[in-house]
Amino acid sequence: MSQKIKVGIVGGTGYTGVELLRLLALHPNVQLHAITSRKEEGMKVAEMFPNLRGKVDLAFSTPENAALTECDVVFFATPHGVAMAQAQELLDAGVKVIDLAADFRLQDTAVFEKWYKMPHGCPDILKQSTYGLVEINREKIAQSKVIGNPGCYPTTVILGLAPVLEKRLVEIDHIVADCKSGVSGAGRKAEVGTLFSEASDNFKAYGVSGHRHHPEISEQLSKLAGAEVGLLFVPHLVPMIRGMLSTIYVKIKPDALATDFQKLYEERYANEQFIDVMPAGSLPETRSVRASNQLRIALHRPGNGDTLVIVVVQDNLVKGAAGQAVQNMNVLFGLAENTGLNHVAVLP
Amino acid sequence: MSQKIKVGIVGGTGYTGVELLRLLALHPNVQLHAITSRKEEGMKVAEMFPNLRGKVDLAFSTPENAALTECDVVFFATPHGVAMAQAQELLDAGVKVIDLAADFRLQDTAVFEKWYKMPHGCPDILKQSTYGLVEINREKIAQSKVIGNPGCYPTTVILGLAPVLEKRLVEIDHIVADCKSGVSGAGRKAEVGTLFSEASDNFKAYGVSGHRHHPEISEQLSKLAGAEVGLLFVPHLVPMIRGMLSTIYVKIKPDALATDFQKLYEERYANEQFIDVMPAGSLPETRSVRASNQLRIALHRPGNGDTLVIVVVQDNLVKGAAGQAVQNMNVLFGLAENTGLNHVAVLP
Amino acid sequence: MSQKIKVGIVGGTGYTGVELLRLLALHPNVQLHAITSRKEEGMKVAEMFPNLRGKVDLAFSTPENAALTECDVVFFATPHGVAMAQAQELLDAGVKVIDLAADFRLQDTAVFEKWYKMPHGCPDILKQSTYGLVEINREKIAQSKVIGNPGCYPTTVILGLAPVLEKRLVEIDHIVADCKSGVSGAGRKAEVGTLFSEASDNFKAYGVSGHRHHPEISEQLSKLAGAEVGLLFVPHLVPMIRGMLSTIYVKIKPDALATDFQKLYEERYANEQFIDVMPAGSLPETRSVRASNQLRIALHRPGNGDTLVIVVVQDNLVKGAAGQAVQNMNVLFGLAENTGLNHVAVLP
Amino acid sequence: MSQKIKVGIVGGTGYTGVELLRLLALHPNVQLHAITSRKEEGMKVAEMFPNLRGKVDLAFSTPENAALTECDVVFFATPHGVAMAQAQELLDAGVKVIDLAADFRLQDTAVFEKWYKMPHGCPDILKQSTYGLVEINREKIAQSKVIGNPGCYPTTVILGLAPVLEKRLVEIDHIVADCKSGVSGAGRKAEVGTLFSEASDNFKAYGVSGHRHHPEISEQLSKLAGAEVGLLFVPHLVPMIRGMLSTIYVKIKPDALATDFQKLYEERYANEQFIDVMPAGSLPETRSVRASNQLRIALHRPGNGDTLVIVVVQDNLVKGAAGQAVQNMNVLFGLAENTGLNHVAVLP
Repeated sequence: MSQKIKVGIVGGTGYTGVELLRLLALHPNVQLHAITSRKEEGMKVAEMFPNLRGKVDLAFSTPENAALTECDVVFFATPHGVAMAQAQELLDAGVKVIDLAADFRLQDTAVFEKWYKMPHGCPDILKQSTYGLVEINREKIAQSKVIGNPGCYPTTVILGLAPVLEKRLVEIDHIVADCKSGVSGAGRKAEVGTLFSEASDNFKAYGVSGHRHHPEISEQLSKLAGAEVGLLFVPHLVPMIRGMLSTIYVKIKPDALATDFQKLYEERYANEQFIDVMPAGSLPETRSVRASNQLRIALHRPGNGDTLVIVVVQDNLVKGAAGQAVQNMNVLFGLAENTGLNHVAVLP
Repeated sequence: MSQKIKVGIVGGTGYTGVELLRLLALHPNVQLHAITSRKEEGMKVAEMFPNLRGKVDLAFSTPENAALTECDVVFFATPHGVAMAQAQELLDAGVKVIDLAADFRLQDTAVFEKWYKMPHGCPDILKQSTYGLVEINREKIAQSKVIGNPGCYPTTVILGLAPVLEKRLVEIDHIVADCKSGVSGAGRKAEVGTLFSEASDNFKAYGVSGHRHHPEISEQLSKLAGAEVGLLFVPHLVPMIRGMLSTIYVKIKPDALATDFQKLYEERYANEQFIDVMPAGSLPETRSVRASNQLRIALHRPGNGDTLVIVVVQDNLVKGAAGQAVQNMNVLFGLAENTGLNHVAVLP
Repeated sequence: MSQKIKVGIVGGTGYTGVELLRLLALHPNVQLHAITSRKEEGMKVAEMFPNLRGKVDLAFSTPENAALTECDVVFFATPHGVAMAQAQELLDAGVKVIDLAADFRLQDTAVFEKWYKMPHGCPDILKQSTYGLVEINREKIAQSKVIGNPGCYPTTVILGLAPVLEKRLVEIDHIVADCKSGVSGAGRKAEVGTLFSEASDNFKAYGVSGHRHHPEISEQLSKLAGAEVGLLFVPHLVPMIRGMLSTIYVKIKPDALATDFQKLYEERYANEQFIDVMPAGSLPETRSVRASNQLRIALHRPGNGDTLVIVVVQDNLVKGAAGQAVQNMNVLFGLAENTGLNHVAVLP
Repeated sequence: MSQKIKVGIVGGTGYTGVELLRLLALHPNVQLHAITSRKEEGMKVAEMFPNLRGKVDLAFSTPENAALTECDVVFFATPHGVAMAQAQELLDAGVKVIDLAADFRLQDTAVFEKWYKMPHGCPDILKQSTYGLVEINREKIAQSKVIGNPGCYPTTVILGLAPVLEKRLVEIDHIVADCKSGVSGAGRKAEVGTLFSEASDNFKAYGVSGHRHHPEISEQLSKLAGAEVGLLFVPHLVPMIRGMLSTIYVKIKPDALATDFQKLYEERYANEQFIDVMPAGSLPETRSVRASNQLRIALHRPGNGDTLVIVVVQDNLVKGAAGQAVQNMNVLFGLAENTGLNHVAVLP
């Protein structure tokens, strides 16, 4: 592709914003066109995020001055509700939209409105949008103009369960997803709860009584299973910046006990360059994917019993957010899927 | 009690050893008599652990020179297998024994030998010993001469499940205990896997295929339930020094769905000063118990469904090890149970 | 002392506030009378800080309802400027005042007003107040009614230099104090800069062009030296919750090169139970004082040259704030200085 | 360059080894030929370092089987003393050598032998070798066959001081370098002192009485200054994995007080793509260079006085070790200096 993709980013002052910039700054097919922040108008992006010094020369502009309709694609790294207010204008101008918030994740607007406490502003666009999990919806994404980039927890749980749900090999009424996330998942908001002195040297569960990723996971798992799943989802906060690990417990159906799950997963993901089914007996660590778009899965069957324990790791800011968004962009524009995403994870 | 308890510690160079010293140094009824380490003979304890400067004047002595038989009680903060080699001599001299390793935890020597890869050296003493979980075995402990101090993970899972198992309110064939521990649980051994640069900013599961605390938990849960339980136990390593959180998932029996579990737990533990059943809706954090002997429990029932989610936190080095050992000592010697253990947890 | 000291705390929602509560909850001579927070009125303190559950039963009250004039002593754990607005009324009622902010630290109101950007509201009270560094001003504190509790950095630098300044053994025109603090020193304010994801796995200098502790240190050092000192003070932020280490570089006067500095320090602090002059060759770690009121000093003279390197550690929230405040209270009320402060530091 | 550089790595099981692999795996002009570890022979590198799965297919081989003489260049990521034993054979075969240990850092073999407690095995090769600080010795490196890759601390201090030493603008008898390093600098050795539970939530100075980087820094500074410098160097350990910050205090000569130091540094490093002189008033953070080869410098002159405070940050494993080694390789082989080193630092 000789011509570069003109990219706009709405809302570039959070962690998904700076991570998009880190990835796009060196993407060989991208020209960064504009990044918006009403509050920081005029400030150089690299002044706020000094890791970008010498790499990104853009300054924040207001949405009005950003000329986003001149872009080929616009990423929304904004709070929920922003993308759905601006999507129509962009689509009318032929601009593709990738939303990293939740506006185009849940297909059922009633569920959206219940969990996000706001009316859905563009149900028609929602219908044409695609849930941007490339490994599940690759063909549909390639044909789409609007992508709902998946939540971080959902990415791990859905990809962790897809092979067994697609093949109907497990009981679906009582799936347990015990998930753990680094603190960057909470975003770059000034809040007491995520201060260093609160979150460091500490561990806790949160959102047990209800987390917005619950309906998103349930909707996608049910689609894969062809029936409604019963999901217990408990997120936990780990004192680390990046990284997510989900431990999934699922009961094998009596007639599936002879399945070679290791082989099943290896075959299902054989052509997926971002999904690594680790050798039998492995236990993945979050640092093995730090700052990369890789997701790793390991399978265990304790005591060779009837429960499958699936352990999944990813970097919540990359495969769980900005990296997956770039992967979606690559698919949207017919590029090799790993263009600009070919990092080696940073270890140690 | 006018006379002080003469205390010996075998193996004081690890984290449970220094934690015992931190607690015992200020215990009003204790006189520290000897602490042994063959390797560090002659070195002042406070030279190795400078937090003890001005508080503990003892030097390490060899087991031979320690005159342990003059003690009233000896704590073993040693690798598995040491206590069982020395217990008989101490008992003969009228010394009580509290082992912080596994020698007196598992009642079934075959199970012990399978998991710890060594023969059990004193099955007769084992039979007279008591599993030192005070909240379950208080009366029996008071009559005992040998205490097997519980493992850290077992303490959280057993105390988290005791009320519902005792009352037969939950299904016991498929209990999930997803447990997370700070790194100090791995001890003070020079090993690559627990180096700062390996364990920091990282999260992983381990021991999925089999962890030595599994049979210990199973044995105790089965005793409480009156039948053999099926347990899935997956431990994880959290990048923090101290703290342990266990998330336990258990299915409520159909005829127990109307139970007020909050009330049940509050009543069961009403007189336990180290067990805090938190108000409905709470989520405990490990830092709320840091450096204290407190254990906190919160109960959740997502979607008011048929699964009870029990979240338990403790400091793995205190209630999960040295604090519980001191609590056992207090019971053994008829002291108020919280003598020397009345700390406020350190937060932040 | 048979009767308990009635204690009030103004502003109990920050880290110095909760640390005061941790220390005072178990202080044998203290009765917690009131703790104020206009914003959190009615909330149990232990709901905000669950480490206090079962230890502190107080709820936050408004300053109006707190009946602070009934106290024997009131601690101000508030932003700068609050104590000076309320001190007169308390003093009139016979209540002693210990301010943990800066209102009574700097003797020169012009300097105060320059650095704190507010007029000093009660210069007369300031004149009667005492800088609450017990090891320097013990007798004067015992006679005082108003104490300006020292800043955290100043405590380390002043106590680190006092022996050589008092004896005029070092050059005072070019003292370098390179100081490092844990993040809790920044307080419990919702700010982006101290979020976990900003401060963790990171290290930086700050305030090089001017930090409010600079004039405080200079004023006290000059008093000790009997002449104005030239001080370079650079604070740094360490990714840990608690702890402070100051590395002080000072040139020995030519005629003092034969001094036995180790002996000098040991003698100067021989009777100070909170000051530990470590053996020659030692290097103190912050964790050796974690959660205790201890301050440790080590002296080095690299290459046996003309520079003395003084390394000082303390817990910034204890000896650097709340612990020192309690130490001041003990002196004010004629108690043994370590009453309620006899903790063993928490290691690991 | 059409043909790839054949690269060998001796000693690939430490942090500099895995970091070399991370950088070289994606270097467009490199073909990884062999990596040696006697102990791990036959093990896939990616099994030890799972971040390399799918990126590096090599297995460890013994030095004997590695056919290192077929390489174009060999990196030694080994303990001190290994490179000097093997260098001659490689040089004879026309292979270039880049040693990441200290064998070719100090020009004075007597100093080497004093600090490293071993005789220098090849003083002749040492004489032909070049100290691999590209920004100082670029031309000489291009002509060399043996490179002593600088130590991590020296890199920051030398580059931080070069502009003022070259121009003779500062007093050189009393330079203070207060340096702070992340824990990965201590390497991947099983040692108690760098365990997570020892190093986390802790801060300390070390090596005050003598650190091996002291003579290396002194030698290079003296060369730049044209006279022997007096250096106080105190390293500290920061609880973070990667990152190094040096705070350097130096007195400006009376006749140089009018110098515009900001301009001086900007001009000195104007053409250096890995050296970023930050705008006046800036304070660099280590995370702004995390996982990149960038080094950032900020200058301060507190109170506009006679002391220059120079703050320097780098990633100790990249610019302080493996990245600088690759930069040296690029110069040795006439490649653009940033080939394979064009990363955006990972923030957060």
